[in-house]
Amino acid sequence: MSELQFSPRPDKKELDESLAFSPKFDANGLIAAMAIDHETREPLMLAYMNEDSLKMTIEKGEAVYYSRSRQEIWHKGATSGHTQKIHEIRADCDQDALILYVTQQGAGACHTGRRSCFYRAISFPENNPVDLKFVDDERTFDPAAVYGS
Amino acid sequence: MSELQFSPRPDKKELDESLAFSPKFDANGLIAAMAIDHETREPLMLAYMNEDSLKMTIEKGEAVYYSRSRQEIWHKGATSGHTQKIHEIRADCDQDALILYVTQQGAGACHTGRRSCFYRAISFPENNPVDLKFVDDERTFDPAAVYGS
Repeated sequence: MSELQFSPRPDKKELDESLAFSPKFDANGLIAAMAIDHETREPLMLAYMNEDSLKMTIEKGEAVYYSRSRQEIWHKGATSGHTQKIHEIRADCDQDALILYVTQQGAGACHTGRRSCFYRAISFPENNPVDLKFVDDERTFDPAAVYGS
Repeated sequence: MSELQFSPRPDKKELDESLAFSPKFDANGLIAAMAIDHETREPLMLAYMNEDSLKMTIEKGEAVYYSRSRQEIWHKGATSGHTQKIHEIRADCDQDALILYVTQQGAGACHTGRRSCFYRAISFPENNPVDLKFVDDERTFDPAAVYGS
């Protein structure tokens, strides 16, 4: 177990200007974290952390998430080699969301072989049912070669 | 009620390459949405949407969230005038997170008077308890003048 400590939540007004780190985890013990490329500022992925994985992220200097589907700690890149080196971790005004500015190791963050998970956008003017179009759709690696088939 | 329709969730493998919009709402009926400045690519805020607010966002072309604390639909800027005009809505690979590329109307997105809610970062090397430092801390408007005191 980590010896790192976070601070208790102060009252709402104090929270905005506090320099104590008092992250708010939701009813499931999770906080949202958006990983963004430190150099290009391109958003890569959005995932969740629990308290343990956030402490591991701070200590390792690499992104460690909590997988909601697998219900386990998820050290990003442990399988693929596509780790995310942490440059900066930002908290928002009420400290219930995080941004990770990272260097993405390897060719991409997304399990589909793309650099970013955000490769589709809603078509406007929208159809009904609403549909998507591909944007920034280049594959930067072969997922079968990295993750196995 | 909106007449817009989303598509049912296909199986996991199909989801990654599907052009049907099949957003996944969590057990509370919510999906995370990160608003990013369309021009500067600066992250502004992270909030949540329910199905109704996401449909309203698409139809209005302005960001409409669901406030978890107030438990109500939250048309961003309805009070402050600081609406967010939608340029693009992106979905991630498994369609359980969104990015909104927006033009932020007025001086900022944050209720503290700053342009972005992400104005603090964890200090590295970290102290224990972990603390924060201000970054990008300029106030762009007086919150008391906009929201009242």
